[in-house]
Amino acid sequence: MKHVILIIMDGLGDRPNVELDGKTALQAATKPNLDYLSSHGTTGLMSPVSFGIRAGSDTSHLSILGYDPHKYYTGRGPFEALGLGIPLKPGDIAFRANYASVMNGKIIDRRAGRIQNTEDLSRELETEIDGVKFIVKSGVEHRAAVVIRGSGLSDMISDTDPHSVNSQPVNAKALSPEADFTASLINKFLERSRKILAKHPLNQKLVSQGKLPANEIMLRGAGKIPKLPSFHEKYGMNGACISGTPLIRGIAGLAGFDIISVEGMNGRVDTNYSNIISAAIRSLEKYDFILINIKGTDIAGHDKKPLLKKEVIEKVDSVILPLLKLLPDTLIVVTGDHSTPCSFGDHTGDPVPILFATDGIINDNVKTFDELSVSTGYYKITSNDIMPLIMSYSDRSEKYGA
Amino acid sequence: MKHVILIIMDGLGDRPNVELDGKTALQAATKPNLDYLSSHGTTGLMSPVSFGIRAGSDTSHLSILGYDPHKYYTGRGPFEALGLGIPLKPGDIAFRANYASVMNGKIIDRRAGRIQNTEDLSRELETEIDGVKFIVKSGVEHRAAVVIRGSGLSDMISDTDPHSVNSQPVNAKALSPEADFTASLINKFLERSRKILAKHPLNQKLVSQGKLPANEIMLRGAGKIPKLPSFHEKYGMNGACISGTPLIRGIAGLAGFDIISVEGMNGRVDTNYSNIISAAIRSLEKYDFILINIKGTDIAGHDKKPLLKKEVIEKVDSVILPLLKLLPDTLIVVTGDHSTPCSFGDHTGDPVPILFATDGIINDNVKTFDELSVSTGYYKITSNDIMPLIMSYSDRSEKYGA
Repeated sequence: MKHVILIIMDGLGDRPNVELDGKTALQAATKPNLDYLSSHGTTGLMSPVSFGIRAGSDTSHLSILGYDPHKYYTGRGPFEALGLGIPLKPGDIAFRANYASVMNGKIIDRRAGRIQNTEDLSRELETEIDGVKFIVKSGVEHRAAVVIRGSGLSDMISDTDPHSVNSQPVNAKALSPEADFTASLINKFLERSRKILAKHPLNQKLVSQGKLPANEIMLRGAGKIPKLPSFHEKYGMNGACISGTPLIRGIAGLAGFDIISVEGMNGRVDTNYSNIISAAIRSLEKYDFILINIKGTDIAGHDKKPLLKKEVIEKVDSVILPLLKLLPDTLIVVTGDHSTPCSFGDHTGDPVPILFATDGIINDNVKTFDELSVSTGYYKITSNDIMPLIMSYSDRSEKYGA
Repeated sequence: MKHVILIIMDGLGDRPNVELDGKTALQAATKPNLDYLSSHGTTGLMSPVSFGIRAGSDTSHLSILGYDPHKYYTGRGPFEALGLGIPLKPGDIAFRANYASVMNGKIIDRRAGRIQNTEDLSRELETEIDGVKFIVKSGVEHRAAVVIRGSGLSDMISDTDPHSVNSQPVNAKALSPEADFTASLINKFLERSRKILAKHPLNQKLVSQGKLPANEIMLRGAGKIPKLPSFHEKYGMNGACISGTPLIRGIAGLAGFDIISVEGMNGRVDTNYSNIISAAIRSLEKYDFILINIKGTDIAGHDKKPLLKKEVIEKVDSVILPLLKLLPDTLIVVTGDHSTPCSFGDHTGDPVPILFATDGIINDNVKTFDELSVSTGYYKITSNDIMPLIMSYSDRSEKYGA
């Protein structure tokens, strides 16, 4: 049985870029090590979730790891909360939250003037009501997440965000009878929050400067943190996750992965690439399966920076050199979780290149790792097919039948 | 409407072999007729059951013939019994069985010293209890199958094999209330068997030679023989099966195929290849669909003999010459049921080459029938897709819609 290193370059797939003479970032990059892995492996195109689906990193990572997102993706609330790094437990109910500005009982700005640094506000709002814990964590600008933890909770709760200005904030309503208790808790929380926010020094200062106060917190997208069946029980492998991105660490954590800390890893383009790969190699002593997520490619895609995306790929390529000598007893899989073409600046439903490299398997005719080259390779698969192929290529599959 | 000949070379898919200068058996073989079929047909890679799945011949043949194995594969017991050539009926309950050695009430060898030629023992154990027939058939070494036939039977029966030595053989337990009757029958059968085995001359001889007796028969893997919907009703084709392998004949029989006997066909590498093809051509007079399974490629794969695998392919190639002139009104399909790479010695989840050849259809650019060549062909499919493609290419499909 072989060890497995799965490298996911976030948002790897690209489209032609004028700045790169019509090439994708992968086509334009100098990447001898990725090309070596292609020519010592089996390649193809992988559609995240399914063909043409514009997958998020959440649904895609679930699917790649063998968890059907149609079953385990419980909405934006829980996965945004995971993305803010809140240590969540299965059964927790999570909401996306916005800080907003209310005047004379009506919302005048759903983003509170795109307020920054709301950490103090969020901390003040944390509380416990009727034995249920309220966790509040600030995100970027006006964004936050609210998580409630306790017994008897339901996620069948309507949004308190009316999704329009000049409307009143609405109360939480139970969308099914068993959610009555949860709805009443949420409304108590909102009432309490309004009092705290109204007199909070940060808001008083904003008002005195003629700026919009964050005197309302609006909740939406209620969802339950899913209970993922243990990765170890599903596949017989001890998993470790190396990622600078809280969302990915959160999903892996729910699946029972150990989370590996790496010095200098920050989930940005200036992360310490070399330390990430060293940590992965060290982790092979203790773990069967290492999931690495590198976020830089996605950031460059969202920022519409093809040269930067190319540069991130080249950095990854240069640090993976030590992996090549592991091929006799390690399966190395490289892919993305979705495409984030620089020309589009967001995720698309385009398939992503994938390679499976280890000694002894078929090498298809593909010698170069990019969208077009791998399109003549062995596979046209979806993310659901990745784990079965990993199990087979790492000599871990049980036979189905005889 | 065209006739169909489906040739399944068992375990056909391969990986690079040192003995063949890094080539797969198909790449190394001289096979002008298979290459001719490729260049007069449409090719691709076919993943048995699904991508990366290490399919057995049982699950794979079910799937190839259009029977979802997740629905119709009822476990190792029934399919091992089919593999021993027991004429089974839907509703029969089958177990895998081991002859074992018991001393002082404890199992001291789960394989009875890998005893050979247990046919006499098995014959003696056959009986009828409370109107239920017990069929016992010996397999290789200590292996056997036990089938019970009658009314009111259930397969919700625990193993009587404790799966470890120094344990006592365990009684069959009903895993659900409706299995109480079956469990009591099994326990009566085991009690009776112990008495017969204890005083059987073969065992007395073994003991006198200081060898381990086969004085216990242990059952496991209870399953019901599935009722397959008739192939003829599903596809409107009369099917005939030509195979030297009891398992394949058994599965085809359950689907309602007629089983064709062929002189010199033995399911080994030294089978009479030429007679098999002659029998297939003769059978076209009476049947619409001929399923041929050739086992030699799989045997060579399990035995890690790439030169032998190449030789089997070359033999098949040489005898199929007469098929080429049937192309105007016959669809010829060639594939494997799974990969059995010689370098691995067992099934893997690798896809298998497939070709569909008949006059008048698209010919993709593939002129050579091997793993890499067909990887640039038309299809990347799973075994579930084979029957619909056969129906379409043989002009038998009904339109779905108008």
